[in-house]
Amino acid sequence: MKVSVSSKNLVEGLRKILNIVTVRTTMPVLNNVLLRTQNGMLSMMTTDTDVSIVTNIECDIEEEGDITLPAKKFAQIIGSFPSGDVKLVTDPTMTTEISCGQAMFKIMGLPAEDFPEPAEVQELHKIDFNKIEFGKTLKKIGYSVSTDQTRPILNGILLSIHEGSITAVATDGRRLALVEKLLDDAGNGIDGDFVLPTKVVNELQKLLEQDGDVTVRLSESHASFIIDNSVLTSKLIDGEYPNYRQVIPGAFKNSVTIPREHFAEVLNRVSMVLNDAGASVKFKLEPNHLTLSASSAEIGEAEEPLEVSYEGDPVTIAFNPAYLRDPLKNLDCDDLTIRFNDEFKPVVILGDEGFLYVIMPMRS
Amino acid sequence: MKVSVSSKNLVEGLRKILNIVTVRTTMPVLNNVLLRTQNGMLSMMTTDTDVSIVTNIECDIEEEGDITLPAKKFAQIIGSFPSGDVKLVTDPTMTTEISCGQAMFKIMGLPAEDFPEPAEVQELHKIDFNKIEFGKTLKKIGYSVSTDQTRPILNGILLSIHEGSITAVATDGRRLALVEKLLDDAGNGIDGDFVLPTKVVNELQKLLEQDGDVTVRLSESHASFIIDNSVLTSKLIDGEYPNYRQVIPGAFKNSVTIPREHFAEVLNRVSMVLNDAGASVKFKLEPNHLTLSASSAEIGEAEEPLEVSYEGDPVTIAFNPAYLRDPLKNLDCDDLTIRFNDEFKPVVILGDEGFLYVIMPMRS
Repeated sequence: MKVSVSSKNLVEGLRKILNIVTVRTTMPVLNNVLLRTQNGMLSMMTTDTDVSIVTNIECDIEEEGDITLPAKKFAQIIGSFPSGDVKLVTDPTMTTEISCGQAMFKIMGLPAEDFPEPAEVQELHKIDFNKIEFGKTLKKIGYSVSTDQTRPILNGILLSIHEGSITAVATDGRRLALVEKLLDDAGNGIDGDFVLPTKVVNELQKLLEQDGDVTVRLSESHASFIIDNSVLTSKLIDGEYPNYRQVIPGAFKNSVTIPREHFAEVLNRVSMVLNDAGASVKFKLEPNHLTLSASSAEIGEAEEPLEVSYEGDPVTIAFNPAYLRDPLKNLDCDDLTIRFNDEFKPVVILGDEGFLYVIMPMRS
Repeated sequence: MKVSVSSKNLVEGLRKILNIVTVRTTMPVLNNVLLRTQNGMLSMMTTDTDVSIVTNIECDIEEEGDITLPAKKFAQIIGSFPSGDVKLVTDPTMTTEISCGQAMFKIMGLPAEDFPEPAEVQELHKIDFNKIEFGKTLKKIGYSVSTDQTRPILNGILLSIHEGSITAVATDGRRLALVEKLLDDAGNGIDGDFVLPTKVVNELQKLLEQDGDVTVRLSESHASFIIDNSVLTSKLIDGEYPNYRQVIPGAFKNSVTIPREHFAEVLNRVSMVLNDAGASVKFKLEPNHLTLSASSAEIGEAEEPLEVSYEGDPVTIAFNPAYLRDPLKNLDCDDLTIRFNDEFKPVVILGDEGFLYVIMPMRS
């Protein structure tokens, strides 16, 4: 392989694919990035065998070929170059000359044949989303994904496609977040449930920052995301996602509307006197008034009132503040609405369009 | 105590004193900040018994008094307040009411009597420095301080006052950095050597960022630094600092002058192929040319030339790049000069005025 490519494009391309690389001693080639000429472009790929990502960048090809190079070291070297053209020249001994300006490196690689190919996704569904919208959906629910490895099905986000709408769901068994949306084009496939692993959700969010479209391809076992010049492919999590609909209460007696940012600030402040992750903040509701309070034997107590829109009977409900902080931080709406029946039954928070969050009050 | 103080001033004051607090279970009061009314100001103090810092801020005093409060928690609460006045009201049960706007806290403290007083510095020397200049001096040598706890005298910076000049020195036994300056006012005291612990040097640097003067008071056992409304006091490290003058070569056969920033960039880049902290970068010198190169069996090799000002014989010297990177990063000069005799003897680097750095070449 003999190619010339701008250092800026290389840095940009490597930034997208570098996080997939995990340091592995059992299969050293997975520490590497695969570089190969393909359709007039330089294709760069990394994989951990479950998740893989390919990105293609413009280059001048003098001689076709391929090689794998230590990914982090390669990115570090490229990142140290001034802007300009980088020349990559591989030789039959698996050494690659990397040069830019007056700097010259000779880096040892491993053969491209040792590098695992990404899975072919047998397309079942193909859906286009606006990148920023799709990224926001993932952000609004991603914090609710479970990290408990004994229930792997909850270690991902469910994308449930059903009768022309898509619902993205995450739950860790103590709280549930979902965003429901109508699909623009519902006529092209069968309904189905697909669970994306957290690693892919995190990577996706980085790739979805700019405007434009992402094409999602789903099969029984895999998902792939086509974003500009990159393709991210992942295994899906195997198994059946629990029936999340049954935890959402059907009717509520009461409803309170609270300005989101001010609420987040007050909640944050009041919960500073807690020094136990399992401790609760009390919500004392009276007509048009909410008073947040908390206390701990070690630190002391805190109290702060808020003006809200509430017309029900006085009631006090207790919540784990950590479970409230997440949606408060990740939504965009000015006001959010908390719907509840009493201080014991599940509570629902509504805010941005299509968003719904369920938590249980704590015993106070 | 009953005082009112602006949240901005409190935040600013706490920022200066918070780093001194270390989490200690043997003496819980050291986790706290001492607050007391003094000469119409609110005085806040933290200490780890070796190093203490007091800062005074403006306040309205309704009732004199004192208390200690958990330092990090207090700072966190104050930091969460909107800008405005904070009221602090202590009661005889050691509870302090902290309120700002609609927020109200009651925080448990410990009695001020339990808090250790800072050492009285019996003044031997008093010197005024420009804050920014003094801070820069510490920065230019601070990285050379030893972290080897078996030689405590090297775990600090020597301030040596001798015949109207002051020399600041740091060494870890493998390299030595110093800055020498004439004192403006040399007539006020006896010559002496004073070794400041690293912790104090680090804290000082944060306090020296703005223009103005710092007054340094030195005694046999303590140093104190008066900076605006704050006083930082520290024990000195006990013992005799080694005779650093004897490691500085008296004469050199050769000299090379190199543009500092470009040199730092090239050195950084070339040393990326090393994966062992003890490995060396080779300097091949020819008239007006320097070529840096490095290699490792695991990664590969790198080479890059630089134009320099050199008129001696061709020679190759090897250095540990880590020991060169530190002065390159912390100096301000455009060009630095390396003076040497041959590839085995100690080498001296000169740059900013009064600065001198000694390292040994490596066997290549």
